[in-house]
Amino acid sequence: MPVITVNWWQGNDREARRELVAGITDVVTRVSGCPDDAVTVIVRDVDPDHWGKGGRLVDESTLPRSLR
Amino acid sequence: MPVITVNWWQGNDREARRELVAGITDVVTRVSGCPDDAVTVIVRDVDPDHWGKGGRLVDESTLPRSLR
Amino acid sequence: MPVITVNWWQGNDREARRELVAGITDVVTRVSGCPDDAVTVIVRDVDPDHWGKGGRLVDESTLPRSLR
Amino acid sequence: MPVITVNWWQGNDREARRELVAGITDVVTRVSGCPDDAVTVIVRDVDPDHWGKGGRLVDESTLPRSLR
Amino acid sequence: MPVITVNWWQGNDREARRELVAGITDVVTRVSGCPDDAVTVIVRDVDPDHWGKGGRLVDESTLPRSLR
Amino acid sequence: MPVITVNWWQGNDREARRELVAGITDVVTRVSGCPDDAVTVIVRDVDPDHWGKGGRLVDESTLPRSLR
Repeated sequence: MPVITVNWWQGNDREARRELVAGITDVVTRVSGCPDDAVTVIVRDVDPDHWGKGGRLVDESTLPRSLR
Repeated sequence: MPVITVNWWQGNDREARRELVAGITDVVTRVSGCPDDAVTVIVRDVDPDHWGKGGRLVDESTLPRSLR
Repeated sequence: MPVITVNWWQGNDREARRELVAGITDVVTRVSGCPDDAVTVIVRDVDPDHWGKGGRLVDESTLPRSLR
Repeated sequence: MPVITVNWWQGNDREARRELVAGITDVVTRVSGCPDDAVTVIVRDVDPDHWGKGGRLVDESTLPRSLR
Repeated sequence: MPVITVNWWQGNDREARRELVAGITDVVTRVSGCPDDAVTVIVRDVDPDHWGKGGRLVDESTLPRSLR
Repeated sequence: MPVITVNWWQGNDREARRELVAGITDVVTRVSGCPDDAVTVIVRDVDPDHWGKGGRLVDESTLPRSLR
């Protein structure tokens, strides 16, 4: 406890996941006061053709990036 | 916002996901009044041998289809 | 199977959930070919002060609605 | 209904998933009184390099096994 | 690790949750070989009027119990 | 996109959620390069009597805090 799940797009490498896990664990322990070892982070890489925004698959989207 | 997650079986292609995302976004905006661009849909293809129903893996199930 | 989870904001009433469930089930059965009775929809009302976008809680956000 | 999701590490084979689904369904029906056929179990194999504990990716962790 | 999430209907009391957690932990450790202390179970009570099956809210459903 | 879900225990107030959302958004944008406005964080407060660890409900647990 706590358990954090991150859904983001495919393409982030091991170094990115390493920074993500370290950074999120840092924030959560600072805010909640729990020890590092109690924090679980699960990272899910989602294919852009399995992600919809604005009614369209993201890899076919015409939305500006901040809206996806 | 809103965020919709769909867990269904593997085997649906891009065209199916395209229709799924368009259709769900349509329903959600109509019911909630939020704009299209605010709707996120995440699609997860699940392998039938990672899906259990009635105590058995679905690809070994003897249940009729509506019960799976 | 399939299982759909909807996270949206608090404030939608029973009639809204009824339309949501009917509409999503309709889309999913049409696209996937599975029977109505096989579709599960779980609706989660999220308090805007438990929802973050753009780095802020949504009820303190200055973002336009389509960006939340 | 009910819907149970299991996130565990990659490497468990079909026989393990078969036992997992049978065992969990058994527990849930015994406790809740619902029939077997109403229980859905979704199994997600997570790569250890997509799983963080104690601020590090699990396959780089120095934590004892019970803490991961 | 592992993390198990159970979505079931409201109305199960503390004793039911206690048995559920003990039983699921037992199954998961037996199948995966991990120690008890590594198993997390999150229980979510869902209101039947936030749960859809067969296109209808479950508390308005005419489906037999095994189909809900 | 991305969508982050945090499951933690009840008892964190608005200020804690505000810091959590700001901190996680900061980490995710730094690591993934996406803009702030694209990051969604959903916070779920879980009652300790709905959270199991080591086969027991957490509010009855005898585990040291880092193991819960």
